[in-house]
Amino acid sequence: MKKIGVALLGLGTVGGGTYTILKEKREFFRAVEGVDIEVKYVVEKNLARCAAFGVPEEIVTCDIDKVVADPSVNIVAEFFGGIEPAKSFMLKALKNGKSVVTANKELFSKYWHVLEPVAKENGAGLYFEATCVGGVPIIRTLTEGVQANEILSIKGIVNGTTNYILSAMTEKGTPYAEALKEAQALGFAEADPTADVEGFDATYKISILSTLAYHKKVPVERVYREGISGVDVADINYGRELGMTLKLLAISKSRGGKIEIRVHPAFISCKHPLAAVSGSFNAVHLIGDSVGDIMLYGRGAGALPTGSAIVSDILFAANQKSHRYLPFDNTTTVTADEDFAPDFTSKYYVRMTVKDECGTLGRIAAAFGKYNVSIVTVLQKDATGKDGVPLIFVTHETSEQSARCAIEEVKSLKGVIKINSVIRVED
Amino acid sequence: MKKIGVALLGLGTVGGGTYTILKEKREFFRAVEGVDIEVKYVVEKNLARCAAFGVPEEIVTCDIDKVVADPSVNIVAEFFGGIEPAKSFMLKALKNGKSVVTANKELFSKYWHVLEPVAKENGAGLYFEATCVGGVPIIRTLTEGVQANEILSIKGIVNGTTNYILSAMTEKGTPYAEALKEAQALGFAEADPTADVEGFDATYKISILSTLAYHKKVPVERVYREGISGVDVADINYGRELGMTLKLLAISKSRGGKIEIRVHPAFISCKHPLAAVSGSFNAVHLIGDSVGDIMLYGRGAGALPTGSAIVSDILFAANQKSHRYLPFDNTTTVTADEDFAPDFTSKYYVRMTVKDECGTLGRIAAAFGKYNVSIVTVLQKDATGKDGVPLIFVTHETSEQSARCAIEEVKSLKGVIKINSVIRVED
Repeated sequence: MKKIGVALLGLGTVGGGTYTILKEKREFFRAVEGVDIEVKYVVEKNLARCAAFGVPEEIVTCDIDKVVADPSVNIVAEFFGGIEPAKSFMLKALKNGKSVVTANKELFSKYWHVLEPVAKENGAGLYFEATCVGGVPIIRTLTEGVQANEILSIKGIVNGTTNYILSAMTEKGTPYAEALKEAQALGFAEADPTADVEGFDATYKISILSTLAYHKKVPVERVYREGISGVDVADINYGRELGMTLKLLAISKSRGGKIEIRVHPAFISCKHPLAAVSGSFNAVHLIGDSVGDIMLYGRGAGALPTGSAIVSDILFAANQKSHRYLPFDNTTTVTADEDFAPDFTSKYYVRMTVKDECGTLGRIAAAFGKYNVSIVTVLQKDATGKDGVPLIFVTHETSEQSARCAIEEVKSLKGVIKINSVIRVED
Repeated sequence: MKKIGVALLGLGTVGGGTYTILKEKREFFRAVEGVDIEVKYVVEKNLARCAAFGVPEEIVTCDIDKVVADPSVNIVAEFFGGIEPAKSFMLKALKNGKSVVTANKELFSKYWHVLEPVAKENGAGLYFEATCVGGVPIIRTLTEGVQANEILSIKGIVNGTTNYILSAMTEKGTPYAEALKEAQALGFAEADPTADVEGFDATYKISILSTLAYHKKVPVERVYREGISGVDVADINYGRELGMTLKLLAISKSRGGKIEIRVHPAFISCKHPLAAVSGSFNAVHLIGDSVGDIMLYGRGAGALPTGSAIVSDILFAANQKSHRYLPFDNTTTVTADEDFAPDFTSKYYVRMTVKDECGTLGRIAAAFGKYNVSIVTVLQKDATGKDGVPLIFVTHETSEQSARCAIEEVKSLKGVIKINSVIRVED
């Protein structure tokens, strides 16, 4: 039977989950996968944590050089998080011909172009299923499931924290700040929630998924980004009246060879399969030119779900006779502008507060018309009060630039008190 | 570059879709997958059809022996459907060391145990992604995505015809017979719809998925089966009042090493991710012990979606240095009773018609209680009329046997006119 030695770099949440799975399932993997996976080292300073997981003392070390020099280690799984020392350790492992498995989406999305050529040069594998959507096999789906397709679009709810917060705001009307506190108390949000709520985490994931899907480098720096910290429950409620649900979506599309890529709150129809994805669940919806619409759904985080993806990669790597690499050069440091759409198109939900006077609606409609922004829906609420009445427009598909120009002009019109919110609407 | 020769057996709907993808995407696959896939033969009698797809005359043949003797053919993709001659041709291909790719779920579920050992003996691959849920990579997910898990349950909407019919009944209140006619007119149902509406098609798929998931032979003959031809719109409507949606579910569960497996109409909560799967879409929901809940969603049929799965298998097979086989012997002809649960447990929705008299409800409740069937919900509708009033019970989880005994006893009670329907309720 094939014997595979694994070293775990770090024993945090996912590292711990991975250790548990590998320990408890060793016999199962021998029987079912025909491979004997042994944890040879755990690189971790926190000895108490290692003891708590029942890691034998003699395999705990801080000496990465010893680990990568050991010929019995075939695969190194990295759980440190952050950039350093994770990056240096991964490069050392690859240079020694060890395959690397990682859940580190920030590092991977920013340094894939550094890791890939080193892996290729040394015949080592580079696996990253766990970087996107926890245990849901979205990477394997792209590389081994829908290879027959040119991917036309990806839309994902790829961050559990923001989906938990938006679900609470939607289902219970909880205001943002309170929903965030609740998520923090339950462990769904970090003490500093910036990476999640401002959409950075989602940009890492959509960059990785898009690079695989479109077979060209889609750097994380190209991802347009807006977070959810400015979302108002009022808009969620108005959206529901219009048959829409608000989600933080990571979106990329390939149209005529041009890629558009963005992360922002967006309304989608309540009938869209993504609309039913609530709480800390994640999902990715793809459109392929042959397969049509498909969606994968599951938990995007957690020790065992993400550990499941790591171990899946370890087993997949163990079963490869030779590893495969990206079919294009991702090391170019220049971002090719011609690969990206200069603007993107969407529908827009615009909520404004206006004076309840004759002529206002007409002036607003004319301003939209001037920029060829045509209107699908107008919702006027009969709120009374001296502070004006809410007026909501949903537009047809238009370019972001036209929408912005039109809204800028509407803002200055007589009778328009305030533009409260502008939210993109996706099909 | 690796060159792979493919022979297509049959140019029906899926065969045609596959031919189109292979022809149009040859350059794409060279660039992205690093493999040059050439269609060497199309085995098809219908020359007009071959011409319509632009198949060059010189590669059209009816001589399977020539095809399997040609060393330039590496992979044979089968689209005949039915058992013969598909089975004989597939065996010939495997015996000649050609890998086989198939969408033929009936054949595959019934003869996997015949094909697998011949494939193994001859070092040929056997790929069947297209047998289950069209282009949705559920097979690859089981074999390469969630291998770290012991699968605890599978619940699937795996038949587009029945889901289309039930969706029409649910959304528009169309009676069964009319919804079936509509599905036939739109090409979602065959002229003889038996295989779909009576659940046979779903039994093939759940047998294949369960065999892979539980790593033991789960023969199609062990699948308990009920179709949808007896479903009444009235029950769908009452179910909705109770927050449930009716679907034809293919279900298997592994509990303590015992498998239960069944296909029947079932209510699920409107909040379950499967509830939102409507029209001709399919989805499979899995629970793994590490990954938790995951679901894959997409089109379960059609030339290009299923062609996408076939081509995915061709590319996957082309990239294997050696093929993998089932980690257990599936050739035993004796079905091991001890591997299967003697009974299954479920919740039950029971609709009956009763006389609107004192004491009836009490007698019914007592009869349920006698068999330890406890009641979650009672819904009494205030319909008036001499034919009695509808009374609906939903039970807690109980064994099928207890439920049947209780219902048999209720049937004979004073005041009970009729048991109208019994529908299982799944979590």
